[in-house]
Amino acid sequence: MSTTAEPQQLYLGIDGGGSKCRAILVSQDSEVLGEGISGPGNPLRGMEIATASIMDATRQALLCAGLPERAMAALTVGAGLAGVNVPQYHALFRDWQHPFAAFHLTSDLHIACMGAHHGQDGAVIIIGTGSCGLAQSCQQVLEVGGHGFPYGDNGSGAWFGLQMVHQVLLCLDGLAAPTAMTEALLKASHCHDQLALVQHFMHASPTLYAKYAPLIFACAEQGDAAALAIVRQGAAHINAIAHRLMSIAPPKLALIGGLAYKVEPYLDAAIRARIVAADASPEWGAVWYARQLAQQQEKTA
Amino acid sequence: MSTTAEPQQLYLGIDGGGSKCRAILVSQDSEVLGEGISGPGNPLRGMEIATASIMDATRQALLCAGLPERAMAALTVGAGLAGVNVPQYHALFRDWQHPFAAFHLTSDLHIACMGAHHGQDGAVIIIGTGSCGLAQSCQQVLEVGGHGFPYGDNGSGAWFGLQMVHQVLLCLDGLAAPTAMTEALLKASHCHDQLALVQHFMHASPTLYAKYAPLIFACAEQGDAAALAIVRQGAAHINAIAHRLMSIAPPKLALIGGLAYKVEPYLDAAIRARIVAADASPEWGAVWYARQLAQQQEKTA
Repeated sequence: MSTTAEPQQLYLGIDGGGSKCRAILVSQDSEVLGEGISGPGNPLRGMEIATASIMDATRQALLCAGLPERAMAALTVGAGLAGVNVPQYHALFRDWQHPFAAFHLTSDLHIACMGAHHGQDGAVIIIGTGSCGLAQSCQQVLEVGGHGFPYGDNGSGAWFGLQMVHQVLLCLDGLAAPTAMTEALLKASHCHDQLALVQHFMHASPTLYAKYAPLIFACAEQGDAAALAIVRQGAAHINAIAHRLMSIAPPKLALIGGLAYKVEPYLDAAIRARIVAADASPEWGAVWYARQLAQQQEKTA
Repeated sequence: MSTTAEPQQLYLGIDGGGSKCRAILVSQDSEVLGEGISGPGNPLRGMEIATASIMDATRQALLCAGLPERAMAALTVGAGLAGVNVPQYHALFRDWQHPFAAFHLTSDLHIACMGAHHGQDGAVIIIGTGSCGLAQSCQQVLEVGGHGFPYGDNGSGAWFGLQMVHQVLLCLDGLAAPTAMTEALLKASHCHDQLALVQHFMHASPTLYAKYAPLIFACAEQGDAAALAIVRQGAAHINAIAHRLMSIAPPKLALIGGLAYKVEPYLDAAIRARIVAADASPEWGAVWYARQLAQQQEKTA
């Protein structure tokens, strides 16, 4: 190790999701030098869009830092991209002729976990439009859930919304006892009857379903029995993910995503006792991931 | 009533579904004179396609019967079209300048019930890719279920397939105990692992899910506990629809659709005791519907 005479090593952390790509440029001393934000950063809509977004966010970060574009060639990059757990998308990035000194690729879930626990061991469950979990402990990594909607993403915003529509349609058909949740959903979706409700949710995206997830928690809090049953069922799904992640004994657990604070009170006491606040963002996780891999490579060199 | 000197009245029954339109031309003495089959006969893909399919099937039926195209103007038509329970689609047909003597419009579910019970009172539950039920008794009509997938169509082929994929993914994630159903689904879908399974069902249509419904019944019959639990849950949904339909006291119940004979053994004894075989096809139901309306109009004239 004789880095003292070398120029300072810069790290770029990239979080590439389905709608946005975020980049953060960090010095060796963990000082933020620049940031960037652009369009979709995952390869599901094609490599051209994904790599254009990554390059765009990178250029913005360099510009912020007052660095020339050619500085790119010296960057050690960590990137967490949605979808790269699928081999065909991973292969596209492996073959990408990137302009960086090094490009370390992993999943968006992995960098979320690295960010939440400052690069140390721990577990994370994301409860947003979708749901999934990852634990990292003593060199082991375990991923659970996700998989997509409607067959997966149990206990996610989209899942809660779908269960709510399902239950309300049963009530309107006279197949289940009506509760206050029926009126609440009709009002919130501006539907005056069952037919309008069906038309509102016909071919609905996970995002549309997820929009109504907070409403079911509000109904449950007001004592609606049907809403409470669904909330408990969704929380049981998240509990199951949490217990599975605990099987490799991560020292702590962070819940992230828009619905995390809603679900948390309904989880088992044993799980709630392990929960900590997330330390930093996924972009930071990507920086720490890049650093760890760079250090490992130095050691083995 | 003095129809003896008039030319014979001909009836045309039309069953317009999402993929096919069937027509049957019937004499006053219930003799089949001709048949026709064409493309999508419901208005969900636009009135042009729907009316072209109806005209095409009608021309075929007239050709079969050796009748000229101008005979259309004398036909009394009954049409059961998917989607016309939605007011905007119903309005399109109400305004249609049809070339027939009379055009009596109702839903595909209604003519299925009329066909199953020879135009008499009764109930029908369709268990195919989707699920829905209708009862007709003493001038009352009650429709239950349907509404679409994934929030409705409980106990349908698509519903069973989705539950199966959901349960198998829980098993593969270590969140539920694995059963023989896991291997059975992987094998049937030619997927070697969880990731392949997720890709196979990503953005799957109800039709793709429904393809796997018979497999879950096969697993249940072989004693698979997880499969049996889902089969019982699906049958409970159909039971609930049946009990609701019985609330207006239809004298009998017919189960139709590809999955009907699979679900039937799992229904309540009280429901099974009411089940009869369907008498005739929905096209025949459309003919009887047209006759009833024509007779009512004669009476009131």
